[in-house]
Amino acid sequence: MSNTDSKTGPNTDPATCELDPAIAERVRFNADGLVPAIVQDITNGDVLMMAWMNDHALAHTLATKKGTYWSRSRQSYWIKGETSGHTQRVEEVRLDCDGDTVLLKIEQTGAACHTGNRTCFDADRLA
Amino acid sequence: MSNTDSKTGPNTDPATCELDPAIAERVRFNADGLVPAIVQDITNGDVLMMAWMNDHALAHTLATKKGTYWSRSRQSYWIKGETSGHTQRVEEVRLDCDGDTVLLKIEQTGAACHTGNRTCFDADRLA
Repeated sequence: MSNTDSKTGPNTDPATCELDPAIAERVRFNADGLVPAIVQDITNGDVLMMAWMNDHALAHTLATKKGTYWSRSRQSYWIKGETSGHTQRVEEVRLDCDGDTVLLKIEQTGAACHTGNRTCFDADRLA
Repeated sequence: MSNTDSKTGPNTDPATCELDPAIAERVRFNADGLVPAIVQDITNGDVLMMAWMNDHALAHTLATKKGTYWSRSRQSYWIKGETSGHTQRVEEVRLDCDGDTVLLKIEQTGAACHTGNRTCFDADRLA
């Protein structure tokens, strides 16, 4: 976690970000090395999206306070808002009781969903 | 979805509950036939827990309004509160933009977490 970019702040490459061993031993990553991250708007409590993190993405999120995920479809890191401008400032990170789910409480700029909706759960109500 | 129990209402066996095909075609279950379900307290917006559903668990949840999950460790259905009394009345069910995550908004009786904590995210704050 030592690289620094003068424009965007420290730790801009998630791949080089190492997770604190004291945290790593508590997180139960799945067989693919991933853990689901629930992303909640800290302002109004809305659940905005769910994404996946590997250890480096979690480390980068903790180090930079930028919501950072692993795209399973693209097989690459994804710093939310880097291209869209819809950034996430991470205010709180919690691990659940059995260590296999992360909860982020964040300040969202713009839409959280790639569709342009405010949340990924806006469009399809089943009941 | 035709079985009925006079004491506990309809559809008490999740295994016999079939998912509406119009919904089934929109849900992207993973390779294990499961989808993650984020469970949110409809009263205060707190994220209470994350659990997994197969098609029958989702069907049972929709039919009975009881939070119903698939336990990966026990490989069995799990109707929240059946043994603990900490039941969940499901008020709203939403599917996310790419169909691979479910959001339940529920009324929780008692603790949502098996540890006795109100939520599964109470105990371990990483940042």
